[in-house]
Amino acid sequence: MLEKIAISSVRIDQLIARRWSARAFDKSKSIEPEKILALCEASRWACSCFNDQPWRFIYWNKFENPEAYQKAFNCLDEWNQKWVKNAPLLIVSIAGSKFIHNGKPNRWGQYDTGAATINLCLQAFSMGLYAHQMGGFSIEKLRQEFNIPVEFTPMAMIAVGYPAVPEILDEEYYKLEIKGRERKPLSFNFFKDSWNTPIVND
Amino acid sequence: MLEKIAISSVRIDQLIARRWSARAFDKSKSIEPEKILALCEASRWACSCFNDQPWRFIYWNKFENPEAYQKAFNCLDEWNQKWVKNAPLLIVSIAGSKFIHNGKPNRWGQYDTGAATINLCLQAFSMGLYAHQMGGFSIEKLRQEFNIPVEFTPMAMIAVGYPAVPEILDEEYYKLEIKGRERKPLSFNFFKDSWNTPIVND
Repeated sequence: MLEKIAISSVRIDQLIARRWSARAFDKSKSIEPEKILALCEASRWACSCFNDQPWRFIYWNKFENPEAYQKAFNCLDEWNQKWVKNAPLLIVSIAGSKFIHNGKPNRWGQYDTGAATINLCLQAFSMGLYAHQMGGFSIEKLRQEFNIPVEFTPMAMIAVGYPAVPEILDEEYYKLEIKGRERKPLSFNFFKDSWNTPIVND
Repeated sequence: MLEKIAISSVRIDQLIARRWSARAFDKSKSIEPEKILALCEASRWACSCFNDQPWRFIYWNKFENPEAYQKAFNCLDEWNQKWVKNAPLLIVSIAGSKFIHNGKPNRWGQYDTGAATINLCLQAFSMGLYAHQMGGFSIEKLRQEFNIPVEFTPMAMIAVGYPAVPEILDEEYYKLEIKGRERKPLSFNFFKDSWNTPIVND
């Protein structure tokens, strides 16, 4: 596994620091059923408003059902297809828009689904797997192909698998794979006491 | 720290399993500046669509600026105020609605902010702190009090602090504090191959 530890001003939890969006997957290695279950369990135990658990997930396992996997794969855009082809597991995260207990709009549906999904990605890294979220796919194609109801919104597709060396990737993806990770300085989006008062001067 | 480990069908990462939404905070203990910084760094290194980092956070430290803290506290609803009063640190997570690189709507703004915020909560638990997200606050009051621009949406307020024993809480909160954690069965929101095909029969 290629390690690209987050460069932070103070030490943070190593699971959080180690997660990154890799593209080099080992196409020959399937993921054990218990590990797939653990990905789901990690999402399941995320927090949500009124404990509504507005997230839904569908996964497609290439080694278990290649036809269904292919249908999901076809929903990805071309840029993503070129590297995702090696990932044995595809998942989509889907956000509900209404509370179960009263049917009213749930303004935290997407927010809570984002939390459940990063839990899944963190769990992947803790088991020696890569997980990479993508926004580049056709919502409508996915909705039609898999009968996703209108009150649910597909948010991200996630490629999961065991790591391979970066050299298996085509040039443009290889460059991204070995490039350092970047974030805006803390002062850009972390404030104290009021809007736009940075917590540090970086 | 009261441990309420997630009850999962397979073992998951213990940081993810240990996070829960506690209410009993030690009001006498301030949080070290490096730990506040670590909370922010954990959020900062979350993933986001186009690496846009649409999240913004404002924190209020009772021990550093009690007046600003009080203003933020006043935005909470009454139910939350009754227990949050012991938490030395309040934070709000705020979601941007437009991409920085082109000014177009970012449909992942809230989703990515949810991910950055659960990273913050996980980081809190990894440092011996409790973190508890709340939806019960006035967006408009918060927006006005702290000049939050209209293209940004406050999503959750978060109470952070060192643990105290559950017995410090009033009866109704005490009962919740010692109650077991619950989630829907996996079959409710985790599917494979198509919508509504459960991954397990639980």
